[in-house]
Amino acid sequence: MKIALAQLDFHIGNFENNTGKIIDFIGQAKRAGADLVVFPEMAVSGYPPLDFLDYTHFTRSCEKAVSEIANVCTGIHAIVGSPSVNPVLKGKNLFNSAFLLGDGKILDVFHKSLLPTYDVFDEYRYFEPGKKAGIATVAGVKVAITICEDLWNEEDDPLYVFCPLDEVIGERPQLIINIAASPFDYQHEHKRKAILRRNVNKYKLPLVYVNHVGAHTDLIFDGGSLVMNAQGSIVLEAPVFQEALMYADPLTIKPEIEIKEKSKFEKIHLALICGIRDYFGKLGFQKATLGLSGGVDSALVLALASEALGPENVFPVMLPSPYSSDHSISDSLQLIKNLGNPVEEIAISEIYEAFLKATRSVFNGIPFNVAEENMQARIRGTLLMAVSNKLGYILLNTSNKSELAVGYGTLYGDMCGGLSVIGDLYKTDVYALCRYINRENEIIPKEILDKAPSAELRPGQKDSDSLPPYEQLDAVLFQYIENQKGPDEILQQGFDESLVSRTLKLVNKNEYKRFQFAPILRVSPKAFGRGRRMPLVARYLS
Amino acid sequence: MKIALAQLDFHIGNFENNTGKIIDFIGQAKRAGADLVVFPEMAVSGYPPLDFLDYTHFTRSCEKAVSEIANVCTGIHAIVGSPSVNPVLKGKNLFNSAFLLGDGKILDVFHKSLLPTYDVFDEYRYFEPGKKAGIATVAGVKVAITICEDLWNEEDDPLYVFCPLDEVIGERPQLIINIAASPFDYQHEHKRKAILRRNVNKYKLPLVYVNHVGAHTDLIFDGGSLVMNAQGSIVLEAPVFQEALMYADPLTIKPEIEIKEKSKFEKIHLALICGIRDYFGKLGFQKATLGLSGGVDSALVLALASEALGPENVFPVMLPSPYSSDHSISDSLQLIKNLGNPVEEIAISEIYEAFLKATRSVFNGIPFNVAEENMQARIRGTLLMAVSNKLGYILLNTSNKSELAVGYGTLYGDMCGGLSVIGDLYKTDVYALCRYINRENEIIPKEILDKAPSAELRPGQKDSDSLPPYEQLDAVLFQYIENQKGPDEILQQGFDESLVSRTLKLVNKNEYKRFQFAPILRVSPKAFGRGRRMPLVARYLS
Repeated sequence: MKIALAQLDFHIGNFENNTGKIIDFIGQAKRAGADLVVFPEMAVSGYPPLDFLDYTHFTRSCEKAVSEIANVCTGIHAIVGSPSVNPVLKGKNLFNSAFLLGDGKILDVFHKSLLPTYDVFDEYRYFEPGKKAGIATVAGVKVAITICEDLWNEEDDPLYVFCPLDEVIGERPQLIINIAASPFDYQHEHKRKAILRRNVNKYKLPLVYVNHVGAHTDLIFDGGSLVMNAQGSIVLEAPVFQEALMYADPLTIKPEIEIKEKSKFEKIHLALICGIRDYFGKLGFQKATLGLSGGVDSALVLALASEALGPENVFPVMLPSPYSSDHSISDSLQLIKNLGNPVEEIAISEIYEAFLKATRSVFNGIPFNVAEENMQARIRGTLLMAVSNKLGYILLNTSNKSELAVGYGTLYGDMCGGLSVIGDLYKTDVYALCRYINRENEIIPKEILDKAPSAELRPGQKDSDSLPPYEQLDAVLFQYIENQKGPDEILQQGFDESLVSRTLKLVNKNEYKRFQFAPILRVSPKAFGRGRRMPLVARYLS
Repeated sequence: MKIALAQLDFHIGNFENNTGKIIDFIGQAKRAGADLVVFPEMAVSGYPPLDFLDYTHFTRSCEKAVSEIANVCTGIHAIVGSPSVNPVLKGKNLFNSAFLLGDGKILDVFHKSLLPTYDVFDEYRYFEPGKKAGIATVAGVKVAITICEDLWNEEDDPLYVFCPLDEVIGERPQLIINIAASPFDYQHEHKRKAILRRNVNKYKLPLVYVNHVGAHTDLIFDGGSLVMNAQGSIVLEAPVFQEALMYADPLTIKPEIEIKEKSKFEKIHLALICGIRDYFGKLGFQKATLGLSGGVDSALVLALASEALGPENVFPVMLPSPYSSDHSISDSLQLIKNLGNPVEEIAISEIYEAFLKATRSVFNGIPFNVAEENMQARIRGTLLMAVSNKLGYILLNTSNKSELAVGYGTLYGDMCGGLSVIGDLYKTDVYALCRYINRENEIIPKEILDKAPSAELRPGQKDSDSLPPYEQLDAVLFQYIENQKGPDEILQQGFDESLVSRTLKLVNKNEYKRFQFAPILRVSPKAFGRGRRMPLVARYLS
């Protein structure tokens, strides 16, 4: 049995594009003599379509797409993911389904049983759960058809009360197929393979796994489609962050292929390039702008964006103030020389003076404080948005996760931007990714990596005046955000009590800033944004 | 049987406050001779605690609060809503529970079966569903205990496959109790009473309903706790938008009380006042600022905030430009005279000139366009935030729902602010609410209501230059947003084709602006914000 794995990048709601691509790949697989071609979960709609699913116009478009695809699916079978309408009155109106196509028609449809509703996932918002995995015979082989989370209950603290494959294993399938929409994070590959292997070991069956690739705003899909033999060895694996059409006969015993797992920052680097490229590509934009401060965050974003879009398409603007140090310009210019971008400098002093004059009466002699600091950041934000509006460039945000966590940033100032590129990287990760980018040549100047971080909003200011050292801060933040540990558990790990209580308080009190922040490219298992929903008005650890 | 209904305002995560309040009201009810006092759903934590529920420190605080309350609950019974830990390994780790307290201990615990996971609700994100309603005997009366949504499956297109009360009705309960966290919208009272009455009529039992009151960021709870007799007549009803402790013997037949349902705008007015007041009160702020343009939106927000916080605590700032009309200042001053606020004027011309000078080189002779318009809006945003930062006031946003829908607003400009007061009111609703506020005296000057809407960002600009007439626009938006009708269905209603396609395209293309917008006080059944989740990068009707 020759199976084709179609690891593709879809565009949410773009039925013409998605349907066309699926039909094209069915043709390719057929010409290659495949018996079956497998597409990812919700391939026809893109994932996640979110509340577009509340519109019958949208779900009818999904049904229409599946019909169109079925019409051309002859001489080969295909499994295609799509929402489908629940024919029963009781329960949610939709299922998250896998359609089996062949002979120019829909042969069968199977529904996802385990609906991830945590972190970035909201599937029970839309879908009625199925009750078991699908069973179908394709080219004489009995296959069990599952959808993503259906295989994920094999954990030590299972989220669901049953395993959909248990319900059909008595029918003796010969192969497990899993179609997925499983987003990237730097731990995900390891976890995903472990889960798939647990299923293979439990059911003693080979497995074909087909995932999305490409980014949808914050969510990045790495692909990683694979075939595992019944012994749990990976015998075929798709390249990550690329579309791929691969062939395998999963019933034939094949040797384990050698897999060199990429390093954490190699993965993050690929993911962020994919995230930037698809954000621009799918929105139909070519060019980006950003503020270049001379600091490490904007240097990293410039390097990443230049790689993703081409240096000629990334237009950094230097916005010095009287508080800017000399090296902020010289270091920036060295970076630009290394990368090859166009550049502009706009001094903010005169505008800042005009603001100070205009607010003199209302400020009424109250001494310089955060109001004047924020004013400078907002002047920069306004200038960058002016560039964005006038030239049609998207402004890239340069905030990092440590700053976002503790609110060390100005809303409508340095928190401006259409996309947050490094908002899921702690400051210590920012340095590590810079070092990764410099692994062969010094792209980001050493001076930028060596100097003490500063917002340069008042004379001699350093981040360390306001914040704990980043190594300590990031370690506590990681326990609180990623590991969801409370203050008691974090203290038990030996952290300083005042560090912990101050950090948690800052995180909780600054929810209001993150609420209005740009979408963040997600690379960690717990990013700020749609995967972490916190009350804004609350009094807890704050 | 004397039951006390405790309709209270809780504070999310503030266990000291919430526990103290519950214990205080148990004492009051006991002194009044009640057999049972009923508190709302998730009373100990406040609702919704969102991802605080992922922290065991938080859920242990809930358990501790329930224990503390149980300890003092003697000589009376109490039903208190709280999350509880699922003792079974499989499934989600928590239940949404109703604790029955008495004799100084926890007597029983019952779990919510139907978990709302749509619109603003995410309950399956956290909770394992129960399997049936609770049954307990209190003061010799057998009661069926349900939690909010448990009664809401009695609709024509039910979202769930079973009704939790059906599972226990064979045990012959004499009374239904429902503890709720059911937020306000202007249609909700009608819908809620109809649903409760359907249950009463189906089961032929009297019903006691106890809901939250007060606001949590965007969500506003009106209370509306009530007792219905077995014939479906309301025999007791709490005042809306107020805390209340009321007593009833639901087993004694009482006459129907006369209820005068408030008008739509009377309700919305009360809700917005409650929303503003609780946002400030629960965050610990007293004072607000806002930009006063002379237009109807900022006039309405000023009037509402002045009522909620006191006119002396609301500080409007007039920010005229060369494009501002004469009447923008004179109309604003008349409004302030009517309301009694302090006021400040800061002209933006010099700052605007400084920006134009600074951007001359990068703008490179490209004619005046949206870049310069947005620049003015962002200068105003920066000035208002400077006032906010310097004086410690919260900036109130003044955008309306029509603008937000079609993106007729400047991100980081007039879209600034900590709280959107009227972001769930279409422009036509804004006028209607102004007329309601003016029902006895002219608070909002007639001139403001009579003039044509304008952003005044270029000479002679009118909203109608860029947008369809608001009556038409709002009607299409209502079909698309509230009624979730697709283009085909809206066209069938007789709307103009170009109006429909243009409007839907604008709504979808401007998702990125709303993504970064402030929380919006929710008064309609479908507000922008957490209840409407749309892909940002997509191509559908756009």
